[in-house]
Amino acid sequence: MEKTITVLPGDGIGPEVTEAAVKVLETIAKRYNHTFKLQFALIGGAAIDACENPLPEETISLCSDSDAILLGAVGGPKWDQNPSHLRPEKGLLAIRKHFGLYANIRPVKAIPALLESSPLKKEIAENVDMVIVRELTGGLYFAEPRKKTEDYALDTLVYTRPEIERIVDTAFQLARSRRGKLASVDKANVLDSSKLWREIVEEKKQGYPDVEVEHMLVDSTAMKLITKPGAFDVIVTENMFGDILSDEASVITGSLGMLPSASTRGDGFGLYEPVHGSAPDIAGQNKANPAACILSAAMMLREAFQMETEAAAIEEAVFSVLNDGYFTGDLQTKGRRVLSTSDWTDKVLDELDSEF
Amino acid sequence: MEKTITVLPGDGIGPEVTEAAVKVLETIAKRYNHTFKLQFALIGGAAIDACENPLPEETISLCSDSDAILLGAVGGPKWDQNPSHLRPEKGLLAIRKHFGLYANIRPVKAIPALLESSPLKKEIAENVDMVIVRELTGGLYFAEPRKKTEDYALDTLVYTRPEIERIVDTAFQLARSRRGKLASVDKANVLDSSKLWREIVEEKKQGYPDVEVEHMLVDSTAMKLITKPGAFDVIVTENMFGDILSDEASVITGSLGMLPSASTRGDGFGLYEPVHGSAPDIAGQNKANPAACILSAAMMLREAFQMETEAAAIEEAVFSVLNDGYFTGDLQTKGRRVLSTSDWTDKVLDELDSEF
Ligand SMILES: CC(C)[C@H](C(=O)O)[C@@H](O)C(=O)O
Ligand SMILES: CC(C)[C@H](C(=O)O)[C@@H](O)C(=O)O
Repeated sequence: MEKTITVLPGDGIGPEVTEAAVKVLETIAKRYNHTFKLQFALIGGAAIDACENPLPEETISLCSDSDAILLGAVGGPKWDQNPSHLRPEKGLLAIRKHFGLYANIRPVKAIPALLESSPLKKEIAENVDMVIVRELTGGLYFAEPRKKTEDYALDTLVYTRPEIERIVDTAFQLARSRRGKLASVDKANVLDSSKLWREIVEEKKQGYPDVEVEHMLVDSTAMKLITKPGAFDVIVTENMFGDILSDEASVITGSLGMLPSASTRGDGFGLYEPVHGSAPDIAGQNKANPAACILSAAMMLREAFQMETEAAAIEEAVFSVLNDGYFTGDLQTKGRRVLSTSDWTDKVLDELDSEF
Repeated sequence: MEKTITVLPGDGIGPEVTEAAVKVLETIAKRYNHTFKLQFALIGGAAIDACENPLPEETISLCSDSDAILLGAVGGPKWDQNPSHLRPEKGLLAIRKHFGLYANIRPVKAIPALLESSPLKKEIAENVDMVIVRELTGGLYFAEPRKKTEDYALDTLVYTRPEIERIVDTAFQLARSRRGKLASVDKANVLDSSKLWREIVEEKKQGYPDVEVEHMLVDSTAMKLITKPGAFDVIVTENMFGDILSDEASVITGSLGMLPSASTRGDGFGLYEPVHGSAPDIAGQNKANPAACILSAAMMLREAFQMETEAAAIEEAVFSVLNDGYFTGDLQTKGRRVLSTSDWTDKVLDELDSEF
């Protein structure tokens, strides 16, 4: 197959981890006789520095002409004092909105080789296998009006029925393809937007009799993600709750450096990126863990291009390098061999070679 | 001293745990020659059942005539399908608003005897000693307009300068009396209300040169509460972020059944209540852990009545019963002696007697 991929390295460790993922994609292309046309573009701080715009037109047009987008990370202290429209994060919010990427999908699964790095007790972390589905283009982060004076500030949380319906459908379908359990998270005892959310989930569940649905409040969910994370299969929630809960969930298994994510719009096209941030403190030092970006590339192959075999080959290679005892510095513990970003990536490439 | 306390048992295990706290207060009154005039009133589901109003006028008037309020818990499945104005939670929101209880204070401290019950690894949980200061009467849970149709729903997040200033002052003062570290949590990279929040914290910090302030984003805070909870001293944040983060924090040390809270308005008067909920599944079975409610009574003595010695006596009694190896069912693990609510309370009363 021939596919066009726009790579957005971004800021901080973004360039290093996307470089690693690109090497993996090139190896896959060779082995499986695909052509991946890779085109590079700017986003975030890098784009602000180059052309005073966190999401330049050029980037939008390259992304429009491609089959999927692979992103590294955006942001850093350098731009923290900038006015709103010149903040790296604006680039991320804008690209989501521009392409209508309403569904953020984040799998969190315990990796046996990494449980030692989990802050949770082994018996609690080891059964974790969930996917968080976060609504990504509505709610408090986008709605108007917003207003700020010296003495007063206002943000608005709006959801329309179609916005809720499509994300709830995404989650039901995903739950059906997994263990058939869906936790819908809201604050329906207080918020009107949550009441509408809960009503729509109740309506939709008629169409998915094979899925068991539970309504949970966001505050209790924040607890249960720590006390009983193994009980979750699929979680669906609105934008801001999803922002908080998915980050909370990302650290429970000790594998933040391994977590991929997809921001899609229901047709496979989407933006694939590691869950971790731009880690400015270790940027440019060949220390970053490239696994999350490599696994995001695997997720892209599976979801955007239906390349299941290729995706599985990447995942297998990554896990077997970990099982062999090779880690990057973020996962350092006694007795583990710590490699640089590029050396660790080479191990994955070797492993991919040996799979043939 | 003579003090009037309104006790609001509420729903579920509320009546059992307030009964335990009342016994403790009576013992303290005798020992220290105080007169605690206790008056009981309805709130939540119990009040809805009795008079179709989650916060009856009668309750408001008794609370107005008292020096502090002690609450058990509200809510339960029985009222979950009720219309908004007949929901137990409405009673809680209304009493906060009526009395202007804008500052919710929740200490979370590791208790050595309980670390075994923590979902976190011992070395991560054992240093936890933080207080979360949550703004309680503003933001998304109260602001107008709110609107809901079949196809659309809207909530509004508003903060005014005075609302932010007073809660930020509360937190700075608390930080100053502790380890001098304040984490202010917002989502200033996206929300206008958070930008105002951050500006005000920056202004206020000039007045507290002895306090070290860090601004954190709510999503990273949700992570750090799990990976490095021992790093926090005082956390201050707006209503909804505080709701989620304080519940998250409440489970990290394994001592949810032990956590007290205060909702105050700057003059000591306030509502003191356990952090845990109404636990309808074990209500009426003499199984609930009364410690959080007993410790809330201690917090009330300290904060509302300046009875430091009396508060400390209660806390000492509670911890020594735990150290002696007596627990309630929620903290059951191999080798621990499990007592009923009333038997465990008797141990605390015995301990208080023996302190003399
Ligand atoms: C950078 C920020 C706007 C963004 C968000 O909150 O959506 C990020 O935290 C994320 O979760 O992708
Ligand atoms: C019952 C509910 C309205 C309340 C809140 O969210 O404020 C509760 O969760 C709490 O934290 O006290």
